[in-house]
Amino acid sequence: MLSNTRTVRIEWGDCDPAGIVFYPRYFAMFDSSTTYLMERAIGMSKFDYLKTYKFVGHPIVETRAIFRIPTRFGDEVAIETAVAACGRSSIKIEHRLLKAGKLAVEGFETRVFVARDPADPERFKSQPIPAEIAARLNGDA
Amino acid sequence: MLSNTRTVRIEWGDCDPAGIVFYPRYFAMFDSSTTYLMERAIGMSKFDYLKTYKFVGHPIVETRAIFRIPTRFGDEVAIETAVAACGRSSIKIEHRLLKAGKLAVEGFETRVFVARDPADPERFKSQPIPAEIAARLNGDA
Amino acid sequence: MLSNTRTVRIEWGDCDPAGIVFYPRYFAMFDSSTTYLMERAIGMSKFDYLKTYKFVGHPIVETRAIFRIPTRFGDEVAIETAVAACGRSSIKIEHRLLKAGKLAVEGFETRVFVARDPADPERFKSQPIPAEIAARLNGDA
Amino acid sequence: MLSNTRTVRIEWGDCDPAGIVFYPRYFAMFDSSTTYLMERAIGMSKFDYLKTYKFVGHPIVETRAIFRIPTRFGDEVAIETAVAACGRSSIKIEHRLLKAGKLAVEGFETRVFVARDPADPERFKSQPIPAEIAARLNGDA
Repeated sequence: MLSNTRTVRIEWGDCDPAGIVFYPRYFAMFDSSTTYLMERAIGMSKFDYLKTYKFVGHPIVETRAIFRIPTRFGDEVAIETAVAACGRSSIKIEHRLLKAGKLAVEGFETRVFVARDPADPERFKSQPIPAEIAARLNGDA
Repeated sequence: MLSNTRTVRIEWGDCDPAGIVFYPRYFAMFDSSTTYLMERAIGMSKFDYLKTYKFVGHPIVETRAIFRIPTRFGDEVAIETAVAACGRSSIKIEHRLLKAGKLAVEGFETRVFVARDPADPERFKSQPIPAEIAARLNGDA
Repeated sequence: MLSNTRTVRIEWGDCDPAGIVFYPRYFAMFDSSTTYLMERAIGMSKFDYLKTYKFVGHPIVETRAIFRIPTRFGDEVAIETAVAACGRSSIKIEHRLLKAGKLAVEGFETRVFVARDPADPERFKSQPIPAEIAARLNGDA
Repeated sequence: MLSNTRTVRIEWGDCDPAGIVFYPRYFAMFDSSTTYLMERAIGMSKFDYLKTYKFVGHPIVETRAIFRIPTRFGDEVAIETAVAACGRSSIKIEHRLLKAGKLAVEGFETRVFVARDPADPERFKSQPIPAEIAARLNGDA
């Protein structure tokens, strides 16, 4: 399965009055990590692959996160992101955020690839993941 | 169990290029809903109850969310928030976000009340929830 | 000139480790206040007026803010928003954020109404503000 | 005068339904750029210099920004940040955000160094900038 690791610095503006990350910010970090993984799998920027494949996006249908160790501004953390399973139109992705080598946060997400519904462009419809992308996400190509 | 409902308007700045809520923003909304519930249970503003009880906060240790229907800027949604279980130092809270009466997002969270560790003020230690607060959260008082 | 006042509660997640609002959040509040003013002037939700008039938005070309008094989580503030000037395709808007009746933050912004460039839909082109909207923003209708 | 340049990637979650950066996010980027500049001047992380010098922070008292070219998700931009003037307890900082070498956004900010007021720890008092830090910010050391 495809995976990716990147380093993120926790910023002052990511933190709350307790001095630790305001937890919705972790999901924003995970969302970017997923983008990087997709871009690597597809070999295009998100802007380009949405346009090329006529996707509106790959919104999350379910997510779960476990917060083990708090992080605070100035911390440099590593985020390891990997495909856990890739189905017909949905994909499961896992994130492990490490602080000084220790598992601080775990994230699990299920996303669905969607396009605008031709019958009503304000609605989204799930789309099959193109075979060549699925192969790359599955680590087969 | 204590519960609370409030109305939230989805703003332009909550939404992403697909025109729907950027999902970390839902967690920010849920965090505020939890604050309102706590303030109602405790009868003080969060600023005052943190100071009165010497808590640094009640950070989340685990959360899960299911996204059923997208919402977009201009939508007025209702968020129903309720205590699911209140333990010795942790509390489970559930959120149901409704759009036009339909369940759009569900959120589940477990929080722990923490104070600064006297031995090392940069570390947090979990704290028992004061009996009178637990009673209110459990709907017993 | 058209004006509007609304009450906003400062949330925990709006604040930084100093316990006061992380200042970019004020701009998000001002952006919503501008939306409310526009909706009132135009008599439609932003979603509907963008679609009706084929605008992509009314992005800011210049802004300035003065921060006089800090605000913190739990504060209820009033935001007064008014049109300062309405030109052919641009509009100047001013915000006054009051805490307990005292001027805490002032914001000044200039926005331009834009549509997608037919020659290149990825580019934006400024658009004249429709006369009936300009009249309402100027308080003439 | 001290200066610093860094590269920032615009993320999906930084952008609004028009597909361009939601402008408050630029201020969050500038805030981080200022932190990097300060850390370089002081030779400590922000966490450490706040503690060492007993500052609560260096909040903004005035800011102005000019938005010349929109940026969108996937853009890699350079942010050049420089001290414009360093006074007794305040500092002026300027940011230039470049997209493909072109000036896209300019930011100007005035900050004041503050500490908690010993007479009332919930209030902030401006503080003189220590001479050795002012010297570094002025590029004299």
